[in-house]
Amino acid sequence: MSNVSLLELLEAEAGAYVSGEDISRRLNVSRTAVWKQVRKLEAQGYTIDAVPRLGYRLSGKPSRITALELLPKLNTRAFGRQLRIMDVVPSTQDELRKLAEEGAPEGTLVIAEQQTSGRGRMGRAWVSPAGKGVWMSLLLRPLVPLPLTPQLTLLAAVALSRAIARVVPSLSIGIKWPNDLLVDGKKISGILLESAAEDERLRYVVVGLGVSVNLEPDDYPEELLERAVSLKMANGGKAIDRAELIAVILEEFERLYDLFAERGFAPIRALWEAHSVTLNHTVRLTTPTGTLIGVPRSLDEMGGLRVELPDGSFQTVYSADIGDPGTRGGQ
Amino acid sequence: MSNVSLLELLEAEAGAYVSGEDISRRLNVSRTAVWKQVRKLEAQGYTIDAVPRLGYRLSGKPSRITALELLPKLNTRAFGRQLRIMDVVPSTQDELRKLAEEGAPEGTLVIAEQQTSGRGRMGRAWVSPAGKGVWMSLLLRPLVPLPLTPQLTLLAAVALSRAIARVVPSLSIGIKWPNDLLVDGKKISGILLESAAEDERLRYVVVGLGVSVNLEPDDYPEELLERAVSLKMANGGKAIDRAELIAVILEEFERLYDLFAERGFAPIRALWEAHSVTLNHTVRLTTPTGTLIGVPRSLDEMGGLRVELPDGSFQTVYSADIGDPGTRGGQ
Repeated sequence: MSNVSLLELLEAEAGAYVSGEDISRRLNVSRTAVWKQVRKLEAQGYTIDAVPRLGYRLSGKPSRITALELLPKLNTRAFGRQLRIMDVVPSTQDELRKLAEEGAPEGTLVIAEQQTSGRGRMGRAWVSPAGKGVWMSLLLRPLVPLPLTPQLTLLAAVALSRAIARVVPSLSIGIKWPNDLLVDGKKISGILLESAAEDERLRYVVVGLGVSVNLEPDDYPEELLERAVSLKMANGGKAIDRAELIAVILEEFERLYDLFAERGFAPIRALWEAHSVTLNHTVRLTTPTGTLIGVPRSLDEMGGLRVELPDGSFQTVYSADIGDPGTRGGQ
Repeated sequence: MSNVSLLELLEAEAGAYVSGEDISRRLNVSRTAVWKQVRKLEAQGYTIDAVPRLGYRLSGKPSRITALELLPKLNTRAFGRQLRIMDVVPSTQDELRKLAEEGAPEGTLVIAEQQTSGRGRMGRAWVSPAGKGVWMSLLLRPLVPLPLTPQLTLLAAVALSRAIARVVPSLSIGIKWPNDLLVDGKKISGILLESAAEDERLRYVVVGLGVSVNLEPDDYPEELLERAVSLKMANGGKAIDRAELIAVILEEFERLYDLFAERGFAPIRALWEAHSVTLNHTVRLTTPTGTLIGVPRSLDEMGGLRVELPDGSFQTVYSADIGDPGTRGGQ
């Protein structure tokens, strides 16, 4: 008998009692074995009420995400199958980068309950308090050449957007170029791709995915509340199951990644454009070498943003911070 | 008085004796100070003959490249100004990558006398015996977005080719796409760019430059002699001054890099095409996802190779191993 089976059995009963005899019969193990598994689950942070004659019931789940909870929910081939769940780390990106250098396979996932030095785009800090978000990093070893890496950035945004929409259908999510997800103009998540290449060959890509799931207004610095929101806050205060969200993210991501491997960027591009809130509005683009104002019209076939300039000409932008004139970016 | 000054003075005399009094006067230091500097140079591997009444003369240089020798030859703003010369390392790339992560500035250079795990393209081993080659890595922190990294690969090939042509004018050097340098069809050098990026922003690029300078036929595994040659072997057996070559490489590289920052890829592309031996010949291209046969016709504005296929259509290739049908790549 595996731990997973007992947990699944108790979860299926949705808080009702199941007799020890019943469990013992259904899992085909001794009642002593059932008791040992109960104690193991308790050691993992589950609360199990044991009442004579009634039996056992699951009355509390650990606030931490556990492999016990997550693995049975996974519906993937490779993504998340190699899994490391950590309590507090400076950054899941740095942890996974180390594993990548040591040869970890594609799909390896690092999840942390809390990051002390979470990073966003352009080196900005990222608020990632304990137990309230999804802070994780996923390892890819794509066969695409280096210049096509922006396509993966856009793919990640589409995958995350589709996953959140599945888990919290009430939300209307827009993608701000290249990969910020917004609800009512406020940021709910961040994506950061760190890539390592030798010449034109990508050695690996570490995809950092941060979702503000169950954060409360108190969790944000005051000045951030104008432009950041959690799924719970945007969902009328209803908490979201983080393990379920992770499983759905991995499923959507792997599905799109396989589609990309098979059919290239075209379907990803169409999905991105359909979800974008960046196209056809005048924006200010701050690039490493200067600022320009224009109207993004589409993606090009490489994944760059085709921007129409005031004189009617077009410029393709690959790296920029995007905003209305006068605003600044960030979480 | 600096070490460099005494060395420069002795070098300028080209092996003739200079009296201690003369040195003391020209460097404006005491004769005891001259003697101390002589001993320091000897400790660095220089041979200095000291003969009563005649004075001092430089009769031997260390076989190792020293900062003392290299720095006065440098004619650069930043390249090579931060310098680490090492004896034996697994790979200069790994050493410089560590420095890059610690915040080393653009232009930082790591030189090794010998590499025990030198790497070439696609993870191939690279023969780098002690004291006979230039094995070094140069740090760039370019403001170009990630998709334009192939342009830097091509720039590196042009810079190295121009530098070698300046130091060994007798050689006719051709560039094989993307960045192998060939003399009479045999490889004399290898270039490997390792890049680290966050989203579309390049954090840094470590440029590995390996030149087989004074290697003898004995230094090569037999099967490599058909397709690899050293500058000395190609130059009628005449040895080349490694420190001078390094200084010229850094100068040519920095000059092209500044040109690139100012005027973009167009001038680099023109130089690359002019030196290429890859264009307009039928070749086999082995990419991560398959093999194709065609005729490379030009570079596109991103730095990709525009290949004409047998049906007359064009395909742009960013990552491939290139060869005549039946041959394989490598050093």
